Amino acid sequence: MPRDPRYDILFEPVKIGPVTAPNRFYQVPHCTGMGWLRPRMLAEMRGIKAEGGWGVVCTEYNSIHPSSDDLPHPSASLWDDRDIRANRLMTEKVHVHGALAGAELWYGGIRTSNMMTREVALELDSFPNAVGNPFQSRAMDKTDIKTFRHWHKRAALRARDAGFDIVYVYATHGYLISNFLNPRINTRSDEYGGSMENRTRLVRELIEETKDAVGDRCAVAVRFAADERIGEDGVPIHGERRDMFEMLAEMPDLWDINIADYSLEMGVSRFVKEAPLEPYMDFVKSKTTKPVVTVGRFTSPDTMLSQLKRGIVDFIGAARPSIADPFLPKKIQEGRIDSIRECIGCNVCYSGDSIGVPIRCTQNPTMGEEWRKGWHPEKIAPKGSDSSVLIVGAGPAGLEAARALGERGYRVTLAEASRDLGGRVTRECALPGMSEYARVRNYREQELLEMTNVEVYRESALTVEDVMAFEAGHVAIATGAIWRKERFNGEAYVSVAASGTSPDILTPDDIMNGLVPKGPVLVYDEDGYYLGGVIAEKLCREDLDVAIATPADNISDWAGKTSERWRVRTHLMKLGVETIVSHSLQSYDGDTAILTCKYSGQEKPLVARSVVMVTQRRPNDALYHELLAKVDGQTEKLPFTLKRIGDCEAPAIIAAATYAGHKYARELDAEVDADEPLKHDRIDVGDMPPDMG
Amino acid sequence: MPRDPRYDILFEPVKIGPVTAPNRFYQVPHCTGMGWLRPRMLAEMRGIKAEGGWGVVCTEYNSIHPSSDDLPHPSASLWDDRDIRANRLMTEKVHVHGALAGAELWYGGIRTSNMMTREVALELDSFPNAVGNPFQSRAMDKTDIKTFRHWHKRAALRARDAGFDIVYVYATHGYLISNFLNPRINTRSDEYGGSMENRTRLVRELIEETKDAVGDRCAVAVRFAADERIGEDGVPIHGERRDMFEMLAEMPDLWDINIADYSLEMGVSRFVKEAPLEPYMDFVKSKTTKPVVTVGRFTSPDTMLSQLKRGIVDFIGAARPSIADPFLPKKIQEGRIDSIRECIGCNVCYSGDSIGVPIRCTQNPTMGEEWRKGWHPEKIAPKGSDSSVLIVGAGPAGLEAARALGERGYRVTLAEASRDLGGRVTRECALPGMSEYARVRNYREQELLEMTNVEVYRESALTVEDVMAFEAGHVAIATGAIWRKERFNGEAYVSVAASGTSPDILTPDDIMNGLVPKGPVLVYDEDGYYLGGVIAEKLCREDLDVAIATPADNISDWAGKTSERWRVRTHLMKLGVETIVSHSLQSYDGDTAILTCKYSGQEKPLVARSVVMVTQRRPNDALYHELLAKVDGQTEKLPFTLKRIGDCEAPAIIAAATYAGHKYARELDAEVDADEPLKHDRIDVGDMPPDMG
Repeated sequence: MPRDPRYDILFEPVKIGPVTAPNRFYQVPHCTGMGWLRPRMLAEMRGIKAEGGWGVVCTEYNSIHPSSDDLPHPSASLWDDRDIRANRLMTEKVHVHGALAGAELWYGGIRTSNMMTREVALELDSFPNAVGNPFQSRAMDKTDIKTFRHWHKRAALRARDAGFDIVYVYATHGYLISNFLNPRINTRSDEYGGSMENRTRLVRELIEETKDAVGDRCAVAVRFAADERIGEDGVPIHGERRDMFEMLAEMPDLWDINIADYSLEMGVSRFVKEAPLEPYMDFVKSKTTKPVVTVGRFTSPDTMLSQLKRGIVDFIGAARPSIADPFLPKKIQEGRIDSIRECIGCNVCYSGDSIGVPIRCTQNPTMGEEWRKGWHPEKIAPKGSDSSVLIVGAGPAGLEAARALGERGYRVTLAEASRDLGGRVTRECALPGMSEYARVRNYREQELLEMTNVEVYRESALTVEDVMAFEAGHVAIATGAIWRKERFNGEAYVSVAASGTSPDILTPDDIMNGLVPKGPVLVYDEDGYYLGGVIAEKLCREDLDVAIATPADNISDWAGKTSERWRVRTHLMKLGVETIVSHSLQSYDGDTAILTCKYSGQEKPLVARSVVMVTQRRPNDALYHELLAKVDGQTEKLPFTLKRIGDCEAPAIIAAATYAGHKYARELDAEVDADEPLKHDRIDVGDMPPDMG
Repeated sequence: MPRDPRYDILFEPVKIGPVTAPNRFYQVPHCTGMGWLRPRMLAEMRGIKAEGGWGVVCTEYNSIHPSSDDLPHPSASLWDDRDIRANRLMTEKVHVHGALAGAELWYGGIRTSNMMTREVALELDSFPNAVGNPFQSRAMDKTDIKTFRHWHKRAALRARDAGFDIVYVYATHGYLISNFLNPRINTRSDEYGGSMENRTRLVRELIEETKDAVGDRCAVAVRFAADERIGEDGVPIHGERRDMFEMLAEMPDLWDINIADYSLEMGVSRFVKEAPLEPYMDFVKSKTTKPVVTVGRFTSPDTMLSQLKRGIVDFIGAARPSIADPFLPKKIQEGRIDSIRECIGCNVCYSGDSIGVPIRCTQNPTMGEEWRKGWHPEKIAPKGSDSSVLIVGAGPAGLEAARALGERGYRVTLAEASRDLGGRVTRECALPGMSEYARVRNYREQELLEMTNVEVYRESALTVEDVMAFEAGHVAIATGAIWRKERFNGEAYVSVAASGTSPDILTPDDIMNGLVPKGPVLVYDEDGYYLGGVIAEKLCREDLDVAIATPADNISDWAGKTSERWRVRTHLMKLGVETIVSHSLQSYDGDTAILTCKYSGQEKPLVARSVVMVTQRRPNDALYHELLAKVDGQTEKLPFTLKRIGDCEAPAIIAAATYAGHKYARELDAEVDADEPLKHDRIDVGDMPPDMG
């Protein structure tokens, strides 16, 4: 299908200084949990974005010197010649598809403690490390500033030599350069502090020096915050920022605009919807003739169009939407808008860098697997046989398995016990703030509609006999999991019912099924990710008195990895939810919950007419085990191959379920050595010269 | 000097199955933050331990399959042939010195969530991940157990092929195999659960299968906990463990004995002293004829002797003492006991693996730098010139710089303003539990005593004029830092004095100088490592009412990296200290401190007659800046080279100070490219075959 001509503007080439982007789709710098540790994974992944139509594809934060080392969070680096070669892997793959490659030169300052390199971080003063490591920075004197400029220039030259087309001066996100701009942090008394002119001196020098060094071949971009400090969502505090921007407006070749509040800029969909930056940066284009890009988790072509037509931006910037669908631009170009795999805003992608492991994506199970498993987001091998496949359960794992197998050309039957497809995402997306999670189902349901080789049966709970009679060549059990009423004490699942009592103990499944408990209610959260907080919010909105308690030291602790923990806790407190951390639920008798402090052992009684346990899940694997029992556990005696996938195998995050479904589809007939299921980026000492041994 | 013949027994060879250890010094498996990510760093470091006289040198936890992936914590791995080559790097370096190399085969189960490999972890049941990641394991059926045994055997064969002499069955520390042994976790109804015989079945099979596979060439060791569960320190709860041990006693070739409480087994010196495992495992040798090793942070040769003579162990096991001094055995052998660099039990070594960065050591600044900087713990280049060096300040940085430069043969003058050497370690070691920190000073002071080329002047505060008149070729300013009275609000240092008041605000320096504040006292901790808790304890022991408050979500939050956070908080609560987390100190007027919840913004008033701020430090760099000012910042105009080192440059942990002092000494006359100060283990894509690009 040809594209809608309304969207032609999205595909216009745009000049950026000495280079020209082939269209307006711009993958802004984003972290990947790969960086210098995993150059081959990284290059393949970035190359696929260019293949998918992103006109500009940037690196993650790319360190200019060992004194800006963010491990365990793996940044890219341009420290030496080996880094040039590693970065060139990526630029070559990006250039193959006619896209531009951008390098975000980065120096962490207060935000890095250099625990791998053991170098001292340079900053405006001897500040504490911003992420809590007990390493203060060194106050920069003028010699240090000179040295720093030298490092920046060397890195720019290396970026050019690595083949980059755009080189960034990264002056935001609380890193060193942005701190020079900040009047509250930069209290220097020399020509780099004080007046706005002085505070912008370093940025101006860096722009000029980068242009001098590489400007003949590369565009120079500046990443800059449009507002001065964090306020209420949607209400910018610009302070002097407009004036500062005006002072610098014509200096770089491109502006990449951010805001002060990172948790809004890359907010989860629970709290932040599409295009949240607009009120902060809508003045920008009126002050500069240079092209402007910003982000906004844009997945709707009409929103993109509106941003361009109303003169907010020149480029549609994206990190997360390009992760969820590397082929988003191509799909618009080819008129396949319904096939866009829209980002759900869960920020599981961000958890990769937070934790120090490669990026993954709930919507796009191939993310991070492009090189190591050879998975392409839009290409998949045709079927290896004429076998048919029966998939039992249409949650995220079953849906993705059916979709991917359908794409491969297999005859697929997807049987769902309930009326609705989607499994847990359908139930969870009805909870407060969670609506975008439905996209996990919607994308797949839409794709299945167009596949004549996939049949979907709803309200079709299958028995062992049904499955045996089906005569499929392959059977995948994707029947999900249910929340337990017990808790795990570190060794076993135990009931919290006080001795001699049998109180009604609820689970998230009860709440999602519409049950309204009696208040006051205690939500007891051992899961530690988002659901406990969401359930607490839902109950609160039903006018119940709600407390949430957890043995973790924070509410929704794991949501710290996805950048939303802070918002979750603040939000719950504002709603009036009582928050109790570091306490385990020891017993409950229907009236009083006894919580125990995990440090002191002290008991804390809490009046509660109901308790909702958000603890662990039990796989719905009865059908799987009944099938196995038919052949006494000897799967080879079954007339089909049998696998569990997703929560039915091992309850986990939704991303693990779509991944499991996809993996099942990829590997159904592939030769995968179960002992060595993947290749990975690592040191090959076999190639090592003798003196390095 | 020849060794004391009393210690001869330490140097007897000991047979372990088919191999023989050259002596009784045994570096047990310990993590390094290197693993498969950093094979060259790792091999060099382990090799140096063998050179230093450790008769057995083991790997860290060495994963047998991608479904046991602990990233961001870097384990070793034996997943494929490339791993054989990587591991062989280490065994070759160990064998050069006549030592045995041991491989600790490892499968994480409940403790790993496989966030790099995305494989499902196998466990006894579908358990929640033990470290809080939202990924449950898969319950193992009998086919899985068979598969697991196959993986273990394959890894054993790979270990043999990599040249290891000892192969472990790792049945402790809460990993998969140990969970099979645990009657509360293992509730299987088949032949692998229930009776003790059934629960030990897997371990027995693994021992037998490992022997069958590699027993002709390799010894098979079992790592095993001597007690069943955690109780009070020093009071073992053996449960059925003695019987279980008896059942297995003759099966392996060596026993490596641990205990249930990891925080005691590798406790920090603040809470746990030398040889804490003895009461737990003193029965072991009476039940087996096989050699036994255990740990106990042994640094005293007499304790070692006593352990052997009393029949507690056959080998002196060590992780931390071998990190602090890789040459500990050699020093005993050569009668240089005074030169042992004793472990201070700070557990900064452990923080490397906790964080996902290479191991470092407070006492041994060469740890982790053996390969990448070519630093040897006991060898250092002779002086490069006849220049003299003046070091101002004898804290950990100054002492280490003087020691290392003295070893190089430089004429060194060390000038200390106070009467005592040691700087912060001397002050801190007087605080409760901190006595072993004095070892940082003691080792260096002892070494300096024997150096005729180093002169130490106490009570010698130097002025600019003194330094200028000294005519040294090199001057290092190591004058440390002092604790601030202010706090850092994220952008600037601010006073907490309530408007219009000027309350007396104290710092740790005041307390360490002997000042006893009025109670009730608030210790306000923004530092977040150990000192806030230690100060609170000291004040509590002076019979004051004490509260400790911190904006972090935990007390002594960073001490989580060194494994002591849990103990710190429990300990303080037991002492009666009130603990307040997630609150910032907003103001103080001499009577009431106003704390603000960082999530809700709600204020919490707290009565306090005194406040001790444990926040950030200010470098004592006045002398440095005055010297610079003499030449208007143009250091090349000074008649000497000038550097700041340690806390005077950038306040940090003590390990950073000894490191800075050592680095200064190493690099005084070395050609170091400040732009590229280190090599590091990483992917060299230049060597990559084309199809991998």
